[in-house]
Amino acid sequence: VTLLLRDVARELELAFEGDGAIPLEGLASLEDAGVRDLSFVTGPRYRAAFRSSRAGAVIAPPGFDAEGRSCLRASAPYVAFARAVDLFQPRPGPEPGVHPTAVVAPDAVLAAGVYVGPFAVIGRRVRIGARTRIHAHVTLYDGVHVGADCEIHSGAALREDVELGDRVSVQNGSVIGAEGFGFAYTAEGRRVRIPHRGSVVVGDEAQIGANTTIDASHAGHPRRGDTRARTRIGRGVAIDNLVQVGHGCAVGDHSTLCADVALGGSTVLGRGVTLAGAVKSAGHLQVGDGAMAAGASALVGDVEAGARVAGIPHMDLRLWRRAMVALRSLPELLGRVRRLERQLRGAPAED
Amino acid sequence: VTLLLRDVARELELAFEGDGAIPLEGLASLEDAGVRDLSFVTGPRYRAAFRSSRAGAVIAPPGFDAEGRSCLRASAPYVAFARAVDLFQPRPGPEPGVHPTAVVAPDAVLAAGVYVGPFAVIGRRVRIGARTRIHAHVTLYDGVHVGADCEIHSGAALREDVELGDRVSVQNGSVIGAEGFGFAYTAEGRRVRIPHRGSVVVGDEAQIGANTTIDASHAGHPRRGDTRARTRIGRGVAIDNLVQVGHGCAVGDHSTLCADVALGGSTVLGRGVTLAGAVKSAGHLQVGDGAMAAGASALVGDVEAGARVAGIPHMDLRLWRRAMVALRSLPELLGRVRRLERQLRGAPAED
Amino acid sequence: VTLLLRDVARELELAFEGDGAIPLEGLASLEDAGVRDLSFVTGPRYRAAFRSSRAGAVIAPPGFDAEGRSCLRASAPYVAFARAVDLFQPRPGPEPGVHPTAVVAPDAVLAAGVYVGPFAVIGRRVRIGARTRIHAHVTLYDGVHVGADCEIHSGAALREDVELGDRVSVQNGSVIGAEGFGFAYTAEGRRVRIPHRGSVVVGDEAQIGANTTIDASHAGHPRRGDTRARTRIGRGVAIDNLVQVGHGCAVGDHSTLCADVALGGSTVLGRGVTLAGAVKSAGHLQVGDGAMAAGASALVGDVEAGARVAGIPHMDLRLWRRAMVALRSLPELLGRVRRLERQLRGAPAED
Repeated sequence: VTLLLRDVARELELAFEGDGAIPLEGLASLEDAGVRDLSFVTGPRYRAAFRSSRAGAVIAPPGFDAEGRSCLRASAPYVAFARAVDLFQPRPGPEPGVHPTAVVAPDAVLAAGVYVGPFAVIGRRVRIGARTRIHAHVTLYDGVHVGADCEIHSGAALREDVELGDRVSVQNGSVIGAEGFGFAYTAEGRRVRIPHRGSVVVGDEAQIGANTTIDASHAGHPRRGDTRARTRIGRGVAIDNLVQVGHGCAVGDHSTLCADVALGGSTVLGRGVTLAGAVKSAGHLQVGDGAMAAGASALVGDVEAGARVAGIPHMDLRLWRRAMVALRSLPELLGRVRRLERQLRGAPAED
Repeated sequence: VTLLLRDVARELELAFEGDGAIPLEGLASLEDAGVRDLSFVTGPRYRAAFRSSRAGAVIAPPGFDAEGRSCLRASAPYVAFARAVDLFQPRPGPEPGVHPTAVVAPDAVLAAGVYVGPFAVIGRRVRIGARTRIHAHVTLYDGVHVGADCEIHSGAALREDVELGDRVSVQNGSVIGAEGFGFAYTAEGRRVRIPHRGSVVVGDEAQIGANTTIDASHAGHPRRGDTRARTRIGRGVAIDNLVQVGHGCAVGDHSTLCADVALGGSTVLGRGVTLAGAVKSAGHLQVGDGAMAAGASALVGDVEAGARVAGIPHMDLRLWRRAMVALRSLPELLGRVRRLERQLRGAPAED
Repeated sequence: VTLLLRDVARELELAFEGDGAIPLEGLASLEDAGVRDLSFVTGPRYRAAFRSSRAGAVIAPPGFDAEGRSCLRASAPYVAFARAVDLFQPRPGPEPGVHPTAVVAPDAVLAAGVYVGPFAVIGRRVRIGARTRIHAHVTLYDGVHVGADCEIHSGAALREDVELGDRVSVQNGSVIGAEGFGFAYTAEGRRVRIPHRGSVVVGDEAQIGANTTIDASHAGHPRRGDTRARTRIGRGVAIDNLVQVGHGCAVGDHSTLCADVALGGSTVLGRGVTLAGAVKSAGHLQVGDGAMAAGASALVGDVEAGARVAGIPHMDLRLWRRAMVALRSLPELLGRVRRLERQLRGAPAED
C-alpha cells in the first residue's frame, strides 16, 4: 500500500505539518527508515537519530521541533505508530461463520459475527460472545464461556468451565484450566490427586501469550459465583509466552507477566504488578500493588506494594545490585581477610 | 447438587457425628466455607480456623475435638475432601466410542470402553487399553502403546513407539517422545543430528502436566526390551506443566517434578526425588533416592540420597540459607574489611 | 533387522577390519552393547570401556588399535554411528500426498512430493517446497512459506507470513510467529498492544524443538525484503524444547539454544553462540560470535565474542567459579571479620 501523509493523518485523526503529499509505503524505526517510511520520535532524547534518519515523515509529540521535516503530531507517538500498522500492513481477520469441519455441540450458543475455524471443537453448554474468533484446532471443553471480540489462536485449549471476559486474546497453544498440581496423601503416604474443578476466570482485555499454562483451582465452584478461590486473571493483564500460573493464583488487574514467568499455586499478585522475564515465585505468596521483580529473580516471601526486588532469593533491588557488585570481589576479599589474620597473628603479610 | 451429611458419609464410607440431615451444597476451605459447605481440618494446628469457620460440616481426623459441630471422621481428611469433589462437582467423562471425525489406522487395536475424541489421529500399530480416553486433537504416532484407564487431553502428542502404562494422565499440549537434542560433529565441525529412536516409557499412574516435553532417547530399541537406555518416567511420578525432560533421562518411581523444571539429557533421578518449581539440572547427573531440591535451584553435580539442596549452583540447603543471609551483608562487609586494613596500616578508621 | 558387518560397511561407505560376516542387530554404547550390537569409540580415552565391551563390532577412528576386534573405520565415529541408526531402526516417513481431511486453501502452492497429514490447515498464499512433510494438526496461517525437505510435526503453528528455509525441522507444538509482547502507552497510561506484523524468518537447516515459541517482530515487512528488523533464526541454528525467542531477536548462524532458554525482545546473538540450558537474556543485548553462557545463567548486558560467562547476573566464567566457591565460605568469613574487629578493639578474640 502507498498512502499519502495527509491520508495517514486523516485515518489516524492526527494533525500533520509539512508536505501532505509525501508518499509512504511502510513503517520503520528512525534508524531503519527509508524515504518512503513513516517513523516516530518520542522526545528530544532521540534528537540525533531524528536528524540522521532518512524517514519520509515522522510522528512527533507536540512541541518537538521537527526542523522542517514533514510530521504527524501525536501526544503518544508510539501509540499512533502502533495504530498506523493496520494502515500499512493490514491483517484482516477471517470472515464470520463456522467452518464446515468444526464440531460444535448442539447446545453451544454462538453470538452474531463469530468465526469458528477448521477442526475447532466446541463443547456442550459453551457460550461465545459476538465477533469472537476461534481459530483452527482450538478445543473449548464443556461449559466454557468466552466473551465478545475475543481471539483464540490455533491449538489453544480452554478446559471445562473456563470463563473469558470480552476482548481477551489467547495466542497459539496455550492451555487454560488444566488440572492443578495438588495432592493429598493417605495415612500410608500414598499420593492422591485432588480434583481441580474450580476452573479459571479471565478478565476483560487480558492478553495471554503462546504455549502458556494457567491451571484450574481445586476450590471454588464455577457456577455458584464464588470466584474467590478460583484461579483469576484480572482485567487488562498481559501474560507472555511459556508462562505458568499455578492453581488458585490471582493476578491483579493490569499486571504484566513476561515470558517464562512461573507462579506457584495460590500466589496472589496485586494490581499493576510487573514480573520481568523468567521470574519465579514460590506458592502462597502475596505481592502488593505495583511491585516489580527484575528478570530471573525468585520470590520466596511476600513482596510489599511498590517494592522493587531482584535476586534468588529476592531482596531489595538496590541491595541486590550492591551485593552482586560485591560478589565479584568476594574471592579477592577472602585473600584480604586471610592477610589481616596473618598480620594480627604477627606473621608477615605476604600471602 | 444438595446432599445430606449422612449421604456424603455413606458415599465416602466414613462415620459421621452430629446432625446427619445437614444439607450440603459444596466444598470450601475453613475460611471460605458457608453454612452449606463441607470443609476439612487436618489437626489441632487449625483449631482457631475451625472455631471461626461457618462450615456446615467438617471432615476431621479421629480424636480431633469437634466441639459439637457435625463432622465426618477420616484418618486422612484431605484425601476424603478430595474424594468428595466428585460428589459435589461431578465431571463425568465422555461416553466410550470413537468420534466419527477421528482418523484411526486400520491396524490400531482399541480395547473395550475406549473413547477417541474429534480429530484425534491414531497411527499404525497403536494399541490402546480398556477405558482409556483420548481427547480431541491428540496425535498418537505409529507404534504407540497406551495402557488401560489413561486420559490424554487435547492437543497432546505421543511420538513414535512411546509406551504408557495404566492409569496415566497427560494434560493438554504435552509432547512425549519428540527428537532429543543430541548431535555429532564431523571432522570438519559440521553438526549432524543424531536420530533419537529410543522413545519414552512411562510407568503406571504417572501424571504429566500441560505443555510439558519429554524427549526420546537416542539409544535403546523400543521393541527389543532393552529399556535401560530409553527415556524412562517411573511409576507414580508426578510431573507438572512446562517441564522439560531431556533425552535418555530416567525419573525414579514416585518422584515429583514441579512446574518449569528442566532436566538435561541422561540425568538419572532416584525414587521419591522432589524437584521444586523451576529447578534446572545439568545433564548426566545422578540424584539419589528421596533427595529434594528447593525452588529455582540448579543442579550442577550429583546429589546424594536424602540430601536437601538449594542455590545456583546447588549446595546443602542449610549452608545455602546461611550464605544467602550473609550475602545481604556482603556490601557492608567490604567496608568493614577496608576499615580493618586502614587500621592495621596505622591510618585512622574513618572510611 | 539383522545386518552383517560388511553390509553395514557398504551402506555407510566405510572400511571394515576383521570378520565381515558378524551378524548385528542393533546399536548401543560400549557399556550397554551385547554381542549382536554395533558400538563406537571416539579415541584412546575410552580404551578401558572398549576392552570390557561385549559389542560384536565397533566403529573406531583411524589409528585406534582395535586389538583384534572387528571394526569399522570412520574419521568421526559418532557421526557414522548416528548414520547407522537408519539401518537398524529405520523410520520411513509418510508417503507423499495430501490427507483427504486436510484443509488446503485453493491458492496454496505445494511442490512435488509434499506430505500433508490429517487435519492440517494450509492457509491462503502458502507455499510448500518439495518433499516437505507437514504432520497432523499443523496450522500454516496465511502467507507462510516453507522450503524443501522440511519436517513440521503435529500441532505446530506457523503464524502469518512466517518463512522457513530448506531442510528445517520443527518438533511438535512449537509456535513460530505469534504476536510479540510489546506495548505502547497512551498519555493516560493505558496499555495499547503493538501489532507485530514483521513475522519470523528461519534459515536453512535450522532445527526447532517441541513447544518452543518464536515471536513475530513488530517492525520489518514480510514482503518487502527488509529482513533486518524481523525476527531471524540463522542457518543451521539448533533450538531445543520450551525455548522462548522474543520479538525482533536475531540468532546467528549455527548457534545453539538449549532447552528452557529465554531471550528478551531484540536480543542479537552472533554466529556460533551457545546458550546452555535455562539461560535467560534480558532484551536488547548483543552477544558476540562464539560466546558461551553456562546453564542457568542470566545475561544482563552485552557479551563479547568468544567470552565464557556464567551466573545471575552473568560474569566471566572463571570469576564466577571462584565467586561461587567463595560464597560457600561467606558465612564463616563473616565470623572471621567479626573476630578481627574485636581483636583490633582490644577485646579478646573469642566469638
